Amino acid sequence: MFRLRNFLVLKNCKFYSTDKKLIDLKTDEKTRISTLSLQKSPVNSLSTPFLAELGNIFDELETSKSTKGLIVTSNIPNIYSAGLDLMEFYQTDEKRLEAFWTTLQNTWLKIYTTSFPTVAVINGHAVAGGCLLAMSCEYRVMAGPNYTIGLNEAKIGINAPFWFIDVMKTLIGDRKTESAVLSGEMFPAEKALSIGLVDKVVQNVPDALNEANTYLQNAISLIPDSRAIMKRDCRRDVVEKFLKGRKEELKFIVGNVLLPQNQERFKVYFESMKKKK
Amino acid sequence: MFRLRNFLVLKNCKFYSTDKKLIDLKTDEKTRISTLSLQKSPVNSLSTPFLAELGNIFDELETSKSTKGLIVTSNIPNIYSAGLDLMEFYQTDEKRLEAFWTTLQNTWLKIYTTSFPTVAVINGHAVAGGCLLAMSCEYRVMAGPNYTIGLNEAKIGINAPFWFIDVMKTLIGDRKTESAVLSGEMFPAEKALSIGLVDKVVQNVPDALNEANTYLQNAISLIPDSRAIMKRDCRRDVVEKFLKGRKEELKFIVGNVLLPQNQERFKVYFESMKKKK
Amino acid sequence: MFRLRNFLVLKNCKFYSTDKKLIDLKTDEKTRISTLSLQKSPVNSLSTPFLAELGNIFDELETSKSTKGLIVTSNIPNIYSAGLDLMEFYQTDEKRLEAFWTTLQNTWLKIYTTSFPTVAVINGHAVAGGCLLAMSCEYRVMAGPNYTIGLNEAKIGINAPFWFIDVMKTLIGDRKTESAVLSGEMFPAEKALSIGLVDKVVQNVPDALNEANTYLQNAISLIPDSRAIMKRDCRRDVVEKFLKGRKEELKFIVGNVLLPQNQERFKVYFESMKKKK
Repeated sequence: MFRLRNFLVLKNCKFYSTDKKLIDLKTDEKTRISTLSLQKSPVNSLSTPFLAELGNIFDELETSKSTKGLIVTSNIPNIYSAGLDLMEFYQTDEKRLEAFWTTLQNTWLKIYTTSFPTVAVINGHAVAGGCLLAMSCEYRVMAGPNYTIGLNEAKIGINAPFWFIDVMKTLIGDRKTESAVLSGEMFPAEKALSIGLVDKVVQNVPDALNEANTYLQNAISLIPDSRAIMKRDCRRDVVEKFLKGRKEELKFIVGNVLLPQNQERFKVYFESMKKKK
Repeated sequence: MFRLRNFLVLKNCKFYSTDKKLIDLKTDEKTRISTLSLQKSPVNSLSTPFLAELGNIFDELETSKSTKGLIVTSNIPNIYSAGLDLMEFYQTDEKRLEAFWTTLQNTWLKIYTTSFPTVAVINGHAVAGGCLLAMSCEYRVMAGPNYTIGLNEAKIGINAPFWFIDVMKTLIGDRKTESAVLSGEMFPAEKALSIGLVDKVVQNVPDALNEANTYLQNAISLIPDSRAIMKRDCRRDVVEKFLKGRKEELKFIVGNVLLPQNQERFKVYFESMKKKK
Repeated sequence: MFRLRNFLVLKNCKFYSTDKKLIDLKTDEKTRISTLSLQKSPVNSLSTPFLAELGNIFDELETSKSTKGLIVTSNIPNIYSAGLDLMEFYQTDEKRLEAFWTTLQNTWLKIYTTSFPTVAVINGHAVAGGCLLAMSCEYRVMAGPNYTIGLNEAKIGINAPFWFIDVMKTLIGDRKTESAVLSGEMFPAEKALSIGLVDKVVQNVPDALNEANTYLQNAISLIPDSRAIMKRDCRRDVVEKFLKGRKEELKFIVGNVLLPQNQERFKVYFESMKKKK
């Protein structure tokens, strides 16, 4: 129900129209396996319109039942996604912030609760919100030994939302999650594999796509309804806690981001970024 | 309190009388360790009367305080239990389904919350509901390297109830549980051991019974009250979520099983089974 | 809010004045890292006044923002802490018991929810409540291979409170926690390391302090606010369940401890202790 309502809100905000195609979606007609590729230069940062478009695609895939399984990957070399677009936090106002955060919440929920199987082919660094995107799929293949993945918010000066943390807990347990988020550590591929943050590390993208297809073909061979019900039940605790806490979080985030000291921190951050260029 | 009420419900349904002894119970007079052996041909499938009898035995053991520790095993070669009796799902009606599911829920709760220590001696394949039975004991010994254990519902076209999933999560964690139920994998003994789904694998039943007795004798040497309170606290989250969700689940299961497409699926299943014979 | 109220209650009870200094607190002026050393002979047992003093120190550290990171250790050779002072359970009354348990609850919450990073340098056995103290820090270094740590309540005849169990679950998972508390096992250093109950084992105290300082300096280098918010979110489930259950637990504990059979058990225990001397 919340989906429909949010959909309408987004429609009114006219987030649908984007000037160029930020996301490529292809479906193999034979296997009915789809591949969604993020291609928003320079680093697939998750802005309001990008997240809205991503959410729309997941809505369409869910409603049309046009796909039997989905690969989520990137068309940008060496970057899976750099995470939330920090520009959305800076020199903004309450209304824009609310739209941003609500879109993030809605889109994540769609990704996390698909009835069809999903695989992240992580063909670049997966940072913060980019790590969340990968973590929300059912299976994670790292398409190269030199990529890193993690929630590094403590190094940036924002906080990973509670549901980022809860999703990570389901993958690597409470202790390793606390350690990871309180250190802001980005895990190299092999380390990520050893703690369970990814499921497989291969040498290149073609091998990763093979892995992903194997996973999806096995998933597709099972009874879809049974699978979807059990996926819902597996993820129910995280989802219910999120639904219960999302409003309070929205309020907290909006208030916190607009604090003068935090705006100042973003200012310093963006000025240091400019100098790097 | 819920126990008493359910007891009365079952009484009225006259599930107590079974034509032959489906479960054997022996208690060693010296050690006060009991052994409960399932012996319902051909595969210890969990039907309404079988589950009711099992629940009654757990009630009696709990009330009479006649046992200090319990081994749960099978008298059927190579089968621990094949899980829920699928016949209970086919060509049935609302009332019978409700009785079946309520009996399953009640009996499981009794097994999961015993004040005395329990060990599963898994001397055969433990499939779906059979896996749940083993998972609900305190300690699991696999009595042979060739047996398998798992929740394979996704291959059958039913769904493992949420509390099957929650119990598995307490043993092997959230990630491995999602992977296990979404693939329907049956784990060979050594693999089950490596992920923590069983605690020990030995070569044969006598070795398994030795292991079980060692576990129980150590447990019995501790203060029973302290142990029982802490066991309740260890399992409290799973039990409270179950109690909160059991009614809604009952309603969902009854509605879902009686859907024409699912009845058709069971029909196909049973006809394919007949052909195999 | 609960903190303030409890603070006032404690004030009225005059738990603040203690005859000798039971806890030593030093802060390095350069690094702003503090070291809190328990030194209550003979075994750092956690009595009402000792817990109250410990809680006060944590209050002051939190309020004054005088520390950037805290090491929690012992000044008693070979003993980190033997846990709750069992004398508080014996020949007592409802009012004293309530004060004891409330102080324990309050002090633990303060330790568990510090905004600053904490490390346990475990330079001796950490038994029951002493294990909880170590488990509640962010990072645990065992300062010698011969020390042990665990919740051994099942051997003593009391029960580890549900939140001791919940904290342990966050460190070593549900299955290992149930196994640990139902066996009352004290884990030697290397075993504790292998299951994740401690994070590091070194040969001696200086090495342990080095480890602790390294952890804290890294933690301090991150954004304190982001870190504190995420620590709160990491520990939120345990804290919320504790807050919801603490009153009922208080009532249960008071009733249970004062049962004649349990008072008799304590009597036997203390008389056997006297004979040992």
